[in-house]
Amino acid sequence: MDIGIIGASGYTGGELLRLLAVHPDADVVAATSRSKKGKKIGDEHAHLRKIYDLEFEDLSTEEVASRSDIVFTAVPHGTAMQVVPALLDAGVKVVDLSADYRLDHEVFEKVYGIKHTDPREAVYGIPELHPEVSKQAFIANPGCYPTGASLAAAPLADAGLIELAVFDSKSGISGAGAEPSEVSHYPNMAENIQAYKLTAHRHRAEIVQELRRLDGDLKSISFTPHVIPSVRGILTTAHIFVKKELSQEKVRDLFRDFYQDKPFIRLIEGIPMLTSVRGSNFCDIGFEIEKDGNRIVIISAIDNLVKGASGQAIQNMNLMFGLDETSGLWTPGTAP
Amino acid sequence: MDIGIIGASGYTGGELLRLLAVHPDADVVAATSRSKKGKKIGDEHAHLRKIYDLEFEDLSTEEVASRSDIVFTAVPHGTAMQVVPALLDAGVKVVDLSADYRLDHEVFEKVYGIKHTDPREAVYGIPELHPEVSKQAFIANPGCYPTGASLAAAPLADAGLIELAVFDSKSGISGAGAEPSEVSHYPNMAENIQAYKLTAHRHRAEIVQELRRLDGDLKSISFTPHVIPSVRGILTTAHIFVKKELSQEKVRDLFRDFYQDKPFIRLIEGIPMLTSVRGSNFCDIGFEIEKDGNRIVIISAIDNLVKGASGQAIQNMNLMFGLDETSGLWTPGTAP
Amino acid sequence: MDIGIIGASGYTGGELLRLLAVHPDADVVAATSRSKKGKKIGDEHAHLRKIYDLEFEDLSTEEVASRSDIVFTAVPHGTAMQVVPALLDAGVKVVDLSADYRLDHEVFEKVYGIKHTDPREAVYGIPELHPEVSKQAFIANPGCYPTGASLAAAPLADAGLIELAVFDSKSGISGAGAEPSEVSHYPNMAENIQAYKLTAHRHRAEIVQELRRLDGDLKSISFTPHVIPSVRGILTTAHIFVKKELSQEKVRDLFRDFYQDKPFIRLIEGIPMLTSVRGSNFCDIGFEIEKDGNRIVIISAIDNLVKGASGQAIQNMNLMFGLDETSGLWTPGTAP
Amino acid sequence: MDIGIIGASGYTGGELLRLLAVHPDADVVAATSRSKKGKKIGDEHAHLRKIYDLEFEDLSTEEVASRSDIVFTAVPHGTAMQVVPALLDAGVKVVDLSADYRLDHEVFEKVYGIKHTDPREAVYGIPELHPEVSKQAFIANPGCYPTGASLAAAPLADAGLIELAVFDSKSGISGAGAEPSEVSHYPNMAENIQAYKLTAHRHRAEIVQELRRLDGDLKSISFTPHVIPSVRGILTTAHIFVKKELSQEKVRDLFRDFYQDKPFIRLIEGIPMLTSVRGSNFCDIGFEIEKDGNRIVIISAIDNLVKGASGQAIQNMNLMFGLDETSGLWTPGTAP
Repeated sequence: MDIGIIGASGYTGGELLRLLAVHPDADVVAATSRSKKGKKIGDEHAHLRKIYDLEFEDLSTEEVASRSDIVFTAVPHGTAMQVVPALLDAGVKVVDLSADYRLDHEVFEKVYGIKHTDPREAVYGIPELHPEVSKQAFIANPGCYPTGASLAAAPLADAGLIELAVFDSKSGISGAGAEPSEVSHYPNMAENIQAYKLTAHRHRAEIVQELRRLDGDLKSISFTPHVIPSVRGILTTAHIFVKKELSQEKVRDLFRDFYQDKPFIRLIEGIPMLTSVRGSNFCDIGFEIEKDGNRIVIISAIDNLVKGASGQAIQNMNLMFGLDETSGLWTPGTAP
Repeated sequence: MDIGIIGASGYTGGELLRLLAVHPDADVVAATSRSKKGKKIGDEHAHLRKIYDLEFEDLSTEEVASRSDIVFTAVPHGTAMQVVPALLDAGVKVVDLSADYRLDHEVFEKVYGIKHTDPREAVYGIPELHPEVSKQAFIANPGCYPTGASLAAAPLADAGLIELAVFDSKSGISGAGAEPSEVSHYPNMAENIQAYKLTAHRHRAEIVQELRRLDGDLKSISFTPHVIPSVRGILTTAHIFVKKELSQEKVRDLFRDFYQDKPFIRLIEGIPMLTSVRGSNFCDIGFEIEKDGNRIVIISAIDNLVKGASGQAIQNMNLMFGLDETSGLWTPGTAP
Repeated sequence: MDIGIIGASGYTGGELLRLLAVHPDADVVAATSRSKKGKKIGDEHAHLRKIYDLEFEDLSTEEVASRSDIVFTAVPHGTAMQVVPALLDAGVKVVDLSADYRLDHEVFEKVYGIKHTDPREAVYGIPELHPEVSKQAFIANPGCYPTGASLAAAPLADAGLIELAVFDSKSGISGAGAEPSEVSHYPNMAENIQAYKLTAHRHRAEIVQELRRLDGDLKSISFTPHVIPSVRGILTTAHIFVKKELSQEKVRDLFRDFYQDKPFIRLIEGIPMLTSVRGSNFCDIGFEIEKDGNRIVIISAIDNLVKGASGQAIQNMNLMFGLDETSGLWTPGTAP
Repeated sequence: MDIGIIGASGYTGGELLRLLAVHPDADVVAATSRSKKGKKIGDEHAHLRKIYDLEFEDLSTEEVASRSDIVFTAVPHGTAMQVVPALLDAGVKVVDLSADYRLDHEVFEKVYGIKHTDPREAVYGIPELHPEVSKQAFIANPGCYPTGASLAAAPLADAGLIELAVFDSKSGISGAGAEPSEVSHYPNMAENIQAYKLTAHRHRAEIVQELRRLDGDLKSISFTPHVIPSVRGILTTAHIFVKKELSQEKVRDLFRDFYQDKPFIRLIEGIPMLTSVRGSNFCDIGFEIEKDGNRIVIISAIDNLVKGASGQAIQNMNLMFGLDETSGLWTPGTAP
């Protein structure tokens, strides 16, 4: 497959390049960046020196389409809807890593405060929850927080068991992007943890969409994000209040059945950690049931740039082309 | 005041020594440690070199009592009850930093699995919630998590407004002590976050005790702790579901009234951070109300070794001796 | 003493405020900042909330002078020479934290590429090497790297023993200031170490000046700085090749004699660490002699913002006013 | 190739497993560990869950030999010499990751204080410096520090240009192993840097051996290691004093010629960083020449567990079997 990446100089672009470098069927033929035009990929992504000989180019959407079988759009929210139509019209498959096509357009407009200009709809690309990803031409790649949160709670939502769900998520700072800022300034982030958007982060809408799709009666869904002194990873602590007491075995069986034959889900007996998934496309999930209570605490761990972004995008690509879901992605994380 | 510290070689012992070094009315006359006996304090606590000329000693409780006006017991759970009676009988005031006297003895025995051997009861030493600390002879110094959680939720509990409370706490690893372990091994902790005791941490009992004291009808109190790649600090994210919708002003007023004249509580408009309280006895508190919802997210930030342990112990000491609460503690945190 | 701080919103300004808050004889009466004018000090330096009620002001030099007995100028290189003359002319004492008056003006112009516009000369303020600081009206506060390097090598330089000196220094990132940048971006700094200005850092000129003052024949002085994933501190590894083999005792005696009665120098048997000096004005020094060789490795550890900047500035202030050198500074570092 | 790993539960064992998982010609058939016997690999190396189904076994050397074409011995110093002879006698190829066969036996005994019991000699496995690795049956895999230091200085040593060399190295703490210790305790390592063995680290002997092999007259070689708050990586700052002034072009040409056709060496214009090589087998090298001086500062960056250990071991394996040097290793590092 010939692959184009629109917006290749940021973190998700870099991560697509890193992962595609070892994909047996992928060949990156176009990597666009307006600001880095003419620079070698390795000049910006120093870890990719010698791996790629390619240069960043400032190409028209048409030019990217003409070279590619599939295009990843790693662009800001609001920008994707300006390039996706032309790509699809040119017969190219598209995985959009922006938020533009993740939500019902009406919800999108309300949450992002941007008028949506393209009527097309995409399939929401968490393959474990959306088997219809297979053979699709257009996928909206999910947000990082919603991936971790939805995968943690989906089996219980699907069983109609959730009364109230509080997602307390902790993300590595790479989620804030490659651009230096107050919050990413080392002396501000080191030895700290920063809660933000305590009740109204945009990603909540995706979590609500996914869980209500599984259980239309699910009312109470809360989400609070934090950034921690870590570069990569999202640990989601899902405090799930259930409608009735459940045994350890019952919950374990629910998860096993729900995720059977899903290669990237690892159900573990202990408590998942970021260090086990770093650099990989795995989502580790573990849980504990409160004694004499109706609360289950579920922990999920993903790498925000892999399963939470570029890895999942490639997983979607594999399925769109009928390849094995794990093709080029069956690599362990890096630990310690 | 002549001060004795039983168990002075650990982190809370070292922090007592650090803070007392600048207290105008305090003179440390005994610092015990069995394992470090004969070593200079600065040999173990390298930051205290030249500040103290004292040596660690292996002293009998009686000897410590005979030298001291007040003794801090920074010993393991189960050990304090073996030394506290003799200290109090000798007429010495005591601040116990262990868990032995924090809970009703019956609850203590259930939670800690240790038989309690001393019928004495202590006042629970969060001075902002327990004005009766003043002039007391015996204080049980609270756990670090319960300090952060109780201070975050107390005003709403006191007003009888809480329906359900989920405390999701993030602690620096110094809370696990000075002894190297798997979880504190740098390659395991760096770039990670570790959830643990997801539903049944011992500190939950203290939070329940304090909030039910304020609101006897409060049923649902959950607590999940995490350690983050930070040495010091506890950030508590309190997800509070309230019985009725509350306005921003209403909640702000509740907190202002409840904490008026409490010098170490700083109510802030933004979101508290560990870096603002590091090394200091302050507890910063901020909150946000969910729009169209009945959830309030309250964030509190403390230094686990100061307001969460040794600083609060000295604040208690000040009050026990009728000194100004802030004596020797009115020092800013260290930032960046 | 009434104290003015010109440039109080940066890290060295904040550190002056933090340290002066516990100084028994100091009262900060003016804190200037053009960009933060009108904001409370605690709005910018969140750790100083409730400690200071002061606001940042945008004041003329004359106004600052009229309020103050001494002024600290924490301004960029090239700016200090524009405000210092008016301050001194107004009879106010000055400690300048910029580089403007640290070097011979000719050397300064060459190293900094800035024309010097003020003929005044200051005393170079490392009090351990410059007893003439006492009672002075105008002190040039040294650079952070030169403080650590000069203190490590001065006793051997003074004895005329150094053949060749290589200073390999490792600094916390706070030395780069409060402004976010590529190098201070958390994902770039975490789990990394960044060497820079491998052979030609400006601070080298100060090290050369100080060591040549002690040994005019000393030729070979090299300096290479690095930033490490730490907020505070400078560890200097001084690889000193000496003219003749020296015994452990000989070197220890040289250091003891040279630094006798210097309260902030702590000569230790082991190897100094940043964690022992963090937040304090101490400089810890240790060394090891290469067996069968002519190399001595000396390690010094300071907090770059304290002994390397604001703490040393206050130490200078104390001496300028005839106070005890340690006044307000005899506080231990914060560890762990 | 069927591969055995003796000592597979530590960091270098885990890293061999991680890297071999994506090697096209490698199949791990035995992973021994006495203490972890019977546990799944993924129970110890959580990042390898689902990647390996293998269990740790406690096998005799003979059993490992019988299953394998090549065996990696990732065992403590002094232990390798007890298992290597039997492996070689059984006709199996061996890469020994311990220090046992890296040095002349006489030097080894002096440096390590252990009597050597096996007369066999191995080829020292830095392939860029030892083309004779190719087709060998027995390789001594180098130490991590010597790999970074030797690669930084080899071109200048080979040209006979070095007068004096000071290697100041900064390592991630994973080099100290998976066992918790005082130095690896998070509160001791975070926000710190720890110099150690200032003049007499064992790895110095390897650096001396390699550089003297290239220049028999090279006398002065010093080495001082540090651990920094990073899990992986070694940055070596090589302060090289040369016999005559050299131009930028001259030095660049020396390095280019010396390392031409060496795939894992990346000569860069800027300054190498750990974040560019993390997880990969690359060694990045850059340098700067002191103006008007005879000092060249060369910086090399490697991942201590990859090019400094397990990656280089696999590179050696590839060459021993006549495979392409980069087979299974041509993967980029993970950044950010």
